[in-house]
Amino acid sequence: MAGRDADLRFSPYCWRTRLALAHKGLAFETHPWRFGDPAPEPASGPAQVPTLRDGERVVIDSWAIAEYLDGAYPDRPRLNAGPHARFINAWADTILDPAISRLIASDISPLLTEASAAYFVTALEQAFGMTLAEATADREERVAAFRALLAPVRRMLRTQPWLGGAAPDYADDVLGGTLMWPRCVSRFAPLAGDDPVSEWFARLGRLFGGLLETAPRAAA
Amino acid sequence: MAGRDADLRFSPYCWRTRLALAHKGLAFETHPWRFGDPAPEPASGPAQVPTLRDGERVVIDSWAIAEYLDGAYPDRPRLNAGPHARFINAWADTILDPAISRLIASDISPLLTEASAAYFVTALEQAFGMTLAEATADREERVAAFRALLAPVRRMLRTQPWLGGAAPDYADDVLGGTLMWPRCVSRFAPLAGDDPVSEWFARLGRLFGGLLETAPRAAA
Repeated sequence: MAGRDADLRFSPYCWRTRLALAHKGLAFETHPWRFGDPAPEPASGPAQVPTLRDGERVVIDSWAIAEYLDGAYPDRPRLNAGPHARFINAWADTILDPAISRLIASDISPLLTEASAAYFVTALEQAFGMTLAEATADREERVAAFRALLAPVRRMLRTQPWLGGAAPDYADDVLGGTLMWPRCVSRFAPLAGDDPVSEWFARLGRLFGGLLETAPRAAA
Repeated sequence: MAGRDADLRFSPYCWRTRLALAHKGLAFETHPWRFGDPAPEPASGPAQVPTLRDGERVVIDSWAIAEYLDGAYPDRPRLNAGPHARFINAWADTILDPAISRLIASDISPLLTEASAAYFVTALEQAFGMTLAEATADREERVAAFRALLAPVRRMLRTQPWLGGAAPDYADDVLGGTLMWPRCVSRFAPLAGDDPVSEWFARLGRLFGGLLETAPRAAA
């Protein structure tokens, strides 16, 4: 999912898949897609990203892709995309994503093409029942509640370096991909600098040749 | 953790351990303990429940007990108490438990012995910065926010019957143990009857000879 600048990629779901591919040590190419575009080649049907093409196989949906990668490449590092990781994925989708959108939605539309911005703004304003500017107006007050949502992550990081335990796995990719969304589109900081989650995110960002750390961000 | 009635047991952590032992198919005896009592035999040091005694081995803390049981009894059904289940455990501890205490704290003290009630009320009123009656006065309004916290569970139950996947495991024990706390001490319903989480909890309650379903509850 790209901005007007095709190098600006910000979908939390696509970032989860990029991280999963990097964890597996699989080479991949990405292709920009924008709100309102038709389904990415070679998929058909409703447009959805990420869509993975692996030879002749097409897999849609970041969770399905993670399961597919562990099944198709069992000898590479495990993503451990099992039932409990699915909880973490569902938690990110249902709890974190809506909270993040109320912090940074108004920063996204200026970064999009005119056509995709129209699609995006309409969909979100309907969901919020207010303009994007109104939805994010109180973000300075709202950010404390967002940070409180990450309490279970802080609790875990007291006793282990990664959500996956001694080594990162797809649970880390889920949270890392989720946090790449605000990082790429906004200069608003959802995390305090001294938050242990920030330290974890910085460590994740340095993996895979700095895949996250070096990703293009919107200008201030 | 028992009330004045020694059969009334309500600690979410002790319920997690009871469920874990039942999942493992291990016979066990329980002994009542109350706020302010010394450490249960044969442990020493600060009082904490659950404390497990298995032969000469003593294990303190529900999470440590779950890890111990999978290690000590690997041939019995797996609890899968790994890093991702630890997230679910941390989520229950940091997100659900505080929210539940704001729904039912005032119902607990009348059920306790005088000595343990004094201990309990002082500790909670200090934590809340208000009386228990004040802390729970708005629970009818507060319950919707509690139910919203369970969105990731509902999302999972769309595609699998248990948090553990096709079969229940320690992730189910964590959430089930957590929900046993309000069930045992209060007639206030934290879940709507038609919530898929209620249906899941009822199914869990029928396992192990109805361990949860038949557990003593406080009178209305």
